[in-house]
Amino acid sequence: MKSAPLPAPLPDWTDLLRRTPTLVDAWLRGLPDRWLDVDEGPGTWSVRNVVGHLIEGERSDWLPRVRHLLRHGEAVAFPPFDRVAQERRGPRSIEELLDEFATMRAESLRELHAIGLTPTDLARTGRHPEFGVVTLRQHLATWVAHDQTHAMQIARIFGRSLAADVGPWRAYLRAARPPE
Amino acid sequence: MKSAPLPAPLPDWTDLLRRTPTLVDAWLRGLPDRWLDVDEGPGTWSVRNVVGHLIEGERSDWLPRVRHLLRHGEAVAFPPFDRVAQERRGPRSIEELLDEFATMRAESLRELHAIGLTPTDLARTGRHPEFGVVTLRQHLATWVAHDQTHAMQIARIFGRSLAADVGPWRAYLRAARPPE
Repeated sequence: MKSAPLPAPLPDWTDLLRRTPTLVDAWLRGLPDRWLDVDEGPGTWSVRNVVGHLIEGERSDWLPRVRHLLRHGEAVAFPPFDRVAQERRGPRSIEELLDEFATMRAESLRELHAIGLTPTDLARTGRHPEFGVVTLRQHLATWVAHDQTHAMQIARIFGRSLAADVGPWRAYLRAARPPE
Repeated sequence: MKSAPLPAPLPDWTDLLRRTPTLVDAWLRGLPDRWLDVDEGPGTWSVRNVVGHLIEGERSDWLPRVRHLLRHGEAVAFPPFDRVAQERRGPRSIEELLDEFATMRAESLRELHAIGLTPTDLARTGRHPEFGVVTLRQHLATWVAHDQTHAMQIARIFGRSLAADVGPWRAYLRAARPPE
């Protein structure tokens, strides 16, 4: 396997992070509600919920935890991230959600750049409420991988909604298969 | 589960199809080679290969099989789709690949619109070399779901390349997990 480990300096880490709002926008803006509201069954998310969750990540997870770790090290655990915070907010249009995500991601990346993390900073450690000691580098890599996980989810939500329509091709279409 | 079955008339089917070149472009154009060349291990694809495969689908699968089915019905099986045709072509830049995919997809959708499929047409049947009798409706739904499957693949390729970097968060990140 060719590997693509995250290098220092920092700007290279943001190749994917800065693209996520644009690609999600290209995927979802202007879609009819039947695509925006479809989900994978009871208790699962629609793509609208996914964008809401990405916004919550910017608000209370990614940069807030960078600041927290740099300030407190291992002495104070991160506040737990509320993974369903967005579900308590009222319904919002996809346009509003996409605009907010783009604005917040741009602001996060501006602040990250302004902090000017060094390789030494990346090795600094903090305390995760569940996992224990983690490095800043792991936290930042998780930000990148988390975007990709939710891009997978968007594709899977759409694909599964077509599972009954594709007939025998289902065997070849990972996105159209039921949950494992 | 809220369902989003593909409706007639046809224009609604293309909501997602016409977005795919734009979202893949937003995701990949201008990325450094270390992202474009990373794969999931021996015998697996990079995102560059995925775009090449999407181009081959336009060239020899989606509209060609629509034409074939309308002409031959069940009498003549579809020619088999060569799923690795793109691997025999020489290396090409991501920009060239993205441009070609966008051009070909736009042309496919123009032709699909020009054919003006009716609900009766959608129920027409053809013969798949492996699956036997399939409907035109299933073929078109497969086109939509196939895009989503390869969007999942792009996200997974990137996510897995970070598996070693995310540390304990791996448990939460589907995209960063090893193949099942």
